Amino acid sequence: MELWYTENQNNHLRLSCKVNETLHVEKTPFQHLAVLDAPGFGRILVLDGIVQTTVWDEYMYHEMIVHIPLNTHPNPKKVLIIGGGDGGTAREVVRHPRVESVVMVEIDERVVAAARRYLPELSCEFDNPKLDLRFTDGIKHVGESADEYDVIIIDSTDPVGPAVGLFSKEFYQTVFKALKKDGLFVAQTESPLFNRDLIARIYGDIRSVFPVVRPYLTCVPSYPGGMWSFMMGSKRYDPISVEPDGVPPLGYRYYNAEIHRAAFALPQFLRESIGQV
Amino acid sequence: MELWYTENQNNHLRLSCKVNETLHVEKTPFQHLAVLDAPGFGRILVLDGIVQTTVWDEYMYHEMIVHIPLNTHPNPKKVLIIGGGDGGTAREVVRHPRVESVVMVEIDERVVAAARRYLPELSCEFDNPKLDLRFTDGIKHVGESADEYDVIIIDSTDPVGPAVGLFSKEFYQTVFKALKKDGLFVAQTESPLFNRDLIARIYGDIRSVFPVVRPYLTCVPSYPGGMWSFMMGSKRYDPISVEPDGVPPLGYRYYNAEIHRAAFALPQFLRESIGQV
Repeated sequence: MELWYTENQNNHLRLSCKVNETLHVEKTPFQHLAVLDAPGFGRILVLDGIVQTTVWDEYMYHEMIVHIPLNTHPNPKKVLIIGGGDGGTAREVVRHPRVESVVMVEIDERVVAAARRYLPELSCEFDNPKLDLRFTDGIKHVGESADEYDVIIIDSTDPVGPAVGLFSKEFYQTVFKALKKDGLFVAQTESPLFNRDLIARIYGDIRSVFPVVRPYLTCVPSYPGGMWSFMMGSKRYDPISVEPDGVPPLGYRYYNAEIHRAAFALPQFLRESIGQV
Repeated sequence: MELWYTENQNNHLRLSCKVNETLHVEKTPFQHLAVLDAPGFGRILVLDGIVQTTVWDEYMYHEMIVHIPLNTHPNPKKVLIIGGGDGGTAREVVRHPRVESVVMVEIDERVVAAARRYLPELSCEFDNPKLDLRFTDGIKHVGESADEYDVIIIDSTDPVGPAVGLFSKEFYQTVFKALKKDGLFVAQTESPLFNRDLIARIYGDIRSVFPVVRPYLTCVPSYPGGMWSFMMGSKRYDPISVEPDGVPPLGYRYYNAEIHRAAFALPQFLRESIGQV
């Protein structure tokens, strides 16, 4: 018998991968959660029927959502992670030498429990003494913080269900207040191929709140189209001004000093989407 | 009734897209040829069961295989295209202002005939007076040329079937001879995610023949994993030395001066594959 997992990436595109077995299926208070084991991708975390991360390609996402902001800020001592329940973002944050403390706010404790059990490659730093892991609403936590964080990383699901509020202008305003006077934040902002209007809207919203706004790109083969976007809003530091010697050697698998700079080069169609012609 | 086209990208990964209709199916002397019409991708050219190009994302491939080499060479007067039967590469080459003549050598006349009929967005320059279109073996043509071309573009299918000889060290040596004394060439060199060993071998082979060798990347959502590689071998000019004012404004959709430079930034795993640590 062959078992295949198929994801409808949109109305007309499906990605399917062969599956060895379904390791876990659960309805949490927030979403449907599954962990699959696949010969190509290794273990796969699926939330509400959408691939969140696979052991095979997770580093292309996690290194880029973490080391771009941490190497842009000259002294990222205190970091907040919103979401990121699989643990990959926390794993990358705690190994940065200038990070002293990390608060991670994940709304769904069951995602963390599944990652602890099934995704040790990602969840391996949940017990790191630098990390303060809290199960509550990220929007509420940010709203109660003021002048507190150097860097905030928003590692959310797609803008449907529990994550929808994380993609709003009002939220970016509370993020601004929660950051110190030279703080910056990064959010995952979906596919530039399939979500151009969303990215244009987010770009405009962040630009109305932060003096520096920079979209950047990576490749994530298990996400629709393979190309993925992030957006940085920063009060002072510009990520494209980082010099190669500002990138500490941490044994990256995707990221490096050249990728840091190159990630901000936007294809012409995307420049046009956000009004940079 | 719903019709879906499914491609086995490897043993454990399948990409499927909804299809409105099959416009054309044919067994040519060289390969199986089909043209599909799809709601997401527009028309799709399929050779031997592998997607070659789609109207929706072809520019991400064709602009990158053409404008990187043409803007690296300061005076690309005479250009050779090997393959490229869909016409997208020829379309991009002829609109470059310094190109005076183009020889295009496609082994399979039936691909060109299908492109003329079904893919007008790609085949629109087949009758351009700059273009000399010949139906013969590209390896033979290159072997009969000496000191003739400024730029050679190898727009082949995968290294199976008719294209296998285009991925050999012996072929790169004949390409060297066919180029003028400051000539350069580019070849499509498959997926960096799924063909790392092949890319490492090609890199070594081209490096043993050409003084300058530069791999570079683009995104092609309809190809496996979304990330795609090209390799340039050059006798004199280095593509990473091109200044922004060396990029003429030609109404690109993907490529631009920033992308020209950024495409040569390689993810760490790929640097390691080719021995650039």
